[in-house]
Amino acid sequence: MNQQRIDELTAVYRDGLLEDTLPFWIDHSVDREHGGFTVALNRDGSVLDTDKGLWQQGRFSWLLGALYNRAQTLGLADDRRRAEWLALCRHGIEFIDQHGFDPADGRMWFLVTQDGRPLRKRRYAFTESFAAIAYGEYAKATGSDEYAEKARQCYHRMVERFLDPKGIQPKFTDTRPMKSIGSAMITIITAQELRDSIGLEEADEWIDRAIETIARDHMKHDLQVVMETVGPNGEIIDHFDGRTLNPGHAIEAAWFVMIEGNRRNDQQLITMGQTMLDWMWARGWDSQYGGLLYFVDLGGLPVQEYWHDMKFWWPHNEAIIATLLAAQLTGDAKYETMHRQVHDWAYQHFADPEYGDWFGYLHRDGRVSVELKGNLWKGPFHLTFRTSRFHFL
Amino acid sequence: MNQQRIDELTAVYRDGLLEDTLPFWIDHSVDREHGGFTVALNRDGSVLDTDKGLWQQGRFSWLLGALYNRAQTLGLADDRRRAEWLALCRHGIEFIDQHGFDPADGRMWFLVTQDGRPLRKRRYAFTESFAAIAYGEYAKATGSDEYAEKARQCYHRMVERFLDPKGIQPKFTDTRPMKSIGSAMITIITAQELRDSIGLEEADEWIDRAIETIARDHMKHDLQVVMETVGPNGEIIDHFDGRTLNPGHAIEAAWFVMIEGNRRNDQQLITMGQTMLDWMWARGWDSQYGGLLYFVDLGGLPVQEYWHDMKFWWPHNEAIIATLLAAQLTGDAKYETMHRQVHDWAYQHFADPEYGDWFGYLHRDGRVSVELKGNLWKGPFHLTFRTSRFHFL
Repeated sequence: MNQQRIDELTAVYRDGLLEDTLPFWIDHSVDREHGGFTVALNRDGSVLDTDKGLWQQGRFSWLLGALYNRAQTLGLADDRRRAEWLALCRHGIEFIDQHGFDPADGRMWFLVTQDGRPLRKRRYAFTESFAAIAYGEYAKATGSDEYAEKARQCYHRMVERFLDPKGIQPKFTDTRPMKSIGSAMITIITAQELRDSIGLEEADEWIDRAIETIARDHMKHDLQVVMETVGPNGEIIDHFDGRTLNPGHAIEAAWFVMIEGNRRNDQQLITMGQTMLDWMWARGWDSQYGGLLYFVDLGGLPVQEYWHDMKFWWPHNEAIIATLLAAQLTGDAKYETMHRQVHDWAYQHFADPEYGDWFGYLHRDGRVSVELKGNLWKGPFHLTFRTSRFHFL
Repeated sequence: MNQQRIDELTAVYRDGLLEDTLPFWIDHSVDREHGGFTVALNRDGSVLDTDKGLWQQGRFSWLLGALYNRAQTLGLADDRRRAEWLALCRHGIEFIDQHGFDPADGRMWFLVTQDGRPLRKRRYAFTESFAAIAYGEYAKATGSDEYAEKARQCYHRMVERFLDPKGIQPKFTDTRPMKSIGSAMITIITAQELRDSIGLEEADEWIDRAIETIARDHMKHDLQVVMETVGPNGEIIDHFDGRTLNPGHAIEAAWFVMIEGNRRNDQQLITMGQTMLDWMWARGWDSQYGGLLYFVDLGGLPVQEYWHDMKFWWPHNEAIIATLLAAQLTGDAKYETMHRQVHDWAYQHFADPEYGDWFGYLHRDGRVSVELKGNLWKGPFHLTFRTSRFHFL
């Protein structure tokens, strides 16, 4: 990849983040009356639903804190903007502190009302992972030991829950135990983030363990596939749930592994990430319409999930990151081609030049399915900052 | 509607059931080795997943028992086929008896393995409703008091759970109580079925109460809408969940109310059902591509569910029934037109003349999204028999 292309992309990703995504979300999602961030926004930024998803409280706080902490590396010297980012990060952190946790069991809520009254808790510990990285950046920004400790605590609660979800009525019986790649993935990226922000002591150990799980249990070399869901020892489960692949998710995991390989200068890890990317690109890239299919079946059979062939924003963002990273780490021209394919498709179809930011949900052929910009899952997170992370830093 | 058209439709629906849907499911779903019915079938009837959803065990057993019991009324005198239906109904009933219930709390499973080991239980009591009507038909077919009692017991467990879901970790907190039209609907149809099959004593009382709930809390005359989800006293909840309408579901409820009106010779109930149909047809019919949209927002805002604009088989089947019934009960030609619209659209897009039965899941424009014929929700249930019920009987 030549310098001109790198400069071009740098501009697209950095400007996209700072001049498009961030203003959209700062203008429309900050709730100055009740605290926190409103997550459900329509195409033009108007509010669709005042309820507050806790995922996005953590993710947006993290983004703001991370920008503040990395401004220098990003070549941003605008102190006024930095001060705003830190203030808004604190705004999110305060809402999480006040309304994010159920005092009865210490677990985090998934959804609360505009003013923070609890609506829903889920079985999973993903909310804790986003709170952990938000607290981590805030601790770094303010030098606060208290917040570093909160970050650690959220992290520990998350990994404990992955290992032993006690006190929670399980979704399935013990008849056919299954595990998803999600817990390993989120363990890697959360540990990576907290290693950077608060120097999480046991990060490497957790990362090693999670990468080993993926390599041993989820990667199937004979089938050239990263399984989304397997048995406890990596058994392939020949049922709908077991056969359903999520290419964008596995491609996201691929870049987590590649950045670890890059950091450790470990060629084996880089190769592992590349392999995951190659396999799941081959399975997920839609040769008919372009873009990445959401779900595909291991054996090409029908998938039970209704939205299997839709195009979601986040797998495209993750694939932009993964292909660009692979291109930079290996110098292999095929990744530059793949990167150009997914970059072009994504910017042609997801971007909304009229109102800013990206659409989240397209039909297979790229037509917009729903015009909203934000909901419980889509916010300013899976966007260009993650793309630009390894690029500038 | 003239007699020629009625005869034409009678043939389509009866033959569709007896010569298309039923043979497809009898040939492919009966598990003679492990008992019960395999539910997940591909386009050609081959097995996609051996797990057994309990909804379909009950629904298919009900269908077989109901056919056996109503053969004479249907003008079917083929004793060999009747004997097969009863034997297969028993086959399903035995599987439910052996594997349908969790001895720990008496609640029914949602999903079990091929040989009946439990996989998943859900919070909701819909499985119990389908078991109840299956037991009811089997009791009627065999004259068994024991099975009539089992039917009653399932019914009571279902309504009790709707009223007081004790011992089950709720999905939402008490901050914003909501109720869905589903419990009222399923109460009506289950009580109607059990009144016919086992003479359920308190059926009318339950039906009255459920219809009153719909009339009072879910129907909004100022907005001309049947709300899917409301507050405990019918409050409109201005959030995604509260605004999301399910036109096919409300149209299904409409014909439950209309057949009750017809039975009681109660013009007010017939008008209520007609009104529900009119409103939700206006909201759900897709003027661009034809067919019924799955979800629409009360105010035309974006819907959060990804499959909002897909076309599912069951709302079309329910709308065929509702429009045909309205045409017959009122003589109003507009319902004949609506019936023709939905009938034609459904048979053009869902039917699979090559392998039989219907596809279940289409894109908005009528292209097939996934070719499977059966899964946890789609079986031989929402099909032509329900259409033909009031027509022949």
